[in-house]
Amino acid sequence: MIFKIPTRYFLASGVSEGFTPLNAFDGALLQAGIGNTNIVKMSSIVPPHCKLVAPIALPPGALVPAAYAAITSDVPGEIISAGVAIALPEDENQNGLIMEYSAKGERHKIEEIVRNMAVEGMKLRGWEIKDLKSIAIECKIKKIGAALAAVVLWD
Amino acid sequence: MIFKIPTRYFLASGVSEGFTPLNAFDGALLQAGIGNTNIVKMSSIVPPHCKLVAPIALPPGALVPAAYAAITSDVPGEIISAGVAIALPEDENQNGLIMEYSAKGERHKIEEIVRNMAVEGMKLRGWEIKDLKSIAIECKIKKIGAALAAVVLWD
Amino acid sequence: MIFKIPTRYFLASGVSEGFTPLNAFDGALLQAGIGNTNIVKMSSIVPPHCKLVAPIALPPGALVPAAYAAITSDVPGEIISAGVAIALPEDENQNGLIMEYSAKGERHKIEEIVRNMAVEGMKLRGWEIKDLKSIAIECKIKKIGAALAAVVLWD
Repeated sequence: MIFKIPTRYFLASGVSEGFTPLNAFDGALLQAGIGNTNIVKMSSIVPPHCKLVAPIALPPGALVPAAYAAITSDVPGEIISAGVAIALPEDENQNGLIMEYSAKGERHKIEEIVRNMAVEGMKLRGWEIKDLKSIAIECKIKKIGAALAAVVLWD
Repeated sequence: MIFKIPTRYFLASGVSEGFTPLNAFDGALLQAGIGNTNIVKMSSIVPPHCKLVAPIALPPGALVPAAYAAITSDVPGEIISAGVAIALPEDENQNGLIMEYSAKGERHKIEEIVRNMAVEGMKLRGWEIKDLKSIAIECKIKKIGAALAAVVLWD
Repeated sequence: MIFKIPTRYFLASGVSEGFTPLNAFDGALLQAGIGNTNIVKMSSIVPPHCKLVAPIALPPGALVPAAYAAITSDVPGEIISAGVAIALPEDENQNGLIMEYSAKGERHKIEEIVRNMAVEGMKLRGWEIKDLKSIAIECKIKKIGAALAAVVLWD
């Protein structure tokens, strides 16, 4: 933790039904490719010079910092979505900003909101945006379901 | 954090009354033997080859990753319980899965649910279970109380 | 994480309005001087011999453990506050205890409560208090606002 600054990151998302809300969340992590790691939630920065990479097969049980949005529901027929957005700055010596959002509603709507959140966060810093990335996913509930979107940091 | 894979783990649980819900939670952590450490919550894997040990006297103030269930209540007479279960795989090169659950209700009921959650999680992975461990604890509220069950990882 | 024991700490607080509750929280982190780091929430100990320092300019994107209270509101005119208190022991080989509290209400009231929480926590341990520090901040909501108080650990 202390002194550690991640050097790589990737985007991941997943949905799942499950026996309980936590089982559905576990299934969504598995579909996202990070279900066999120990995710530690953090607030929500891409360090300067941190590189976007394709999803990495992380070692099982590793402690992995991630910023994520997750939502569960047990209302059959309900649509839930989770999204994350990353705003990267023009000045590459500055950090990027991650925003997370999840709610009832369709994917495109949640993704639009979370992208706006990242834009607003950069405005607050007074920084120009070079690139805006996002990922979002929706889940239509059968019995108990979860949706997850994450930015995973790694070294 | 990054690159770190814990090599030992132990189970712990505690209950406590307290001046506020957070004080009760603090008391439950103390009774569990981890009240003077900095617990960092994580999702919920026992790494391959990670060994179950007797509870360790952790250094005060150390940053310690743990998967835990915790619940507080301020309803006198109410019974609350917290439990964790660990499903370990037949194939020892695969990781184990931790599930957490807390709710109103008696210990045996919450422990049964959390054990089922761990079984379902291994089914989802398509992995055979070699061993299923669990710990759960209940608290009958006097004024403000907390129950905690944890899997603590260490190195 | 594992084996890591922080050696320095500082207090920080901030308030902000924002486009969404998470944007307001981000703004409060920025005002507190920790908005461009990756805060990892932990429970809530100052290690023995850990030194209070003036707020440090942390490297952007670093993973930073912190104990914090945060609250958001979207009720115009409402006053919300967040506070943290640290009780340090007479015996300097023992750890200090951090408590966090946030609620509707004015700063002085929330700060009094969180200080009492830290005192009660030390009573529970049977330890004499050498020093009691605290910080709290209030936010009167315009549209959507957040208040944050934190103890940040570092090495």
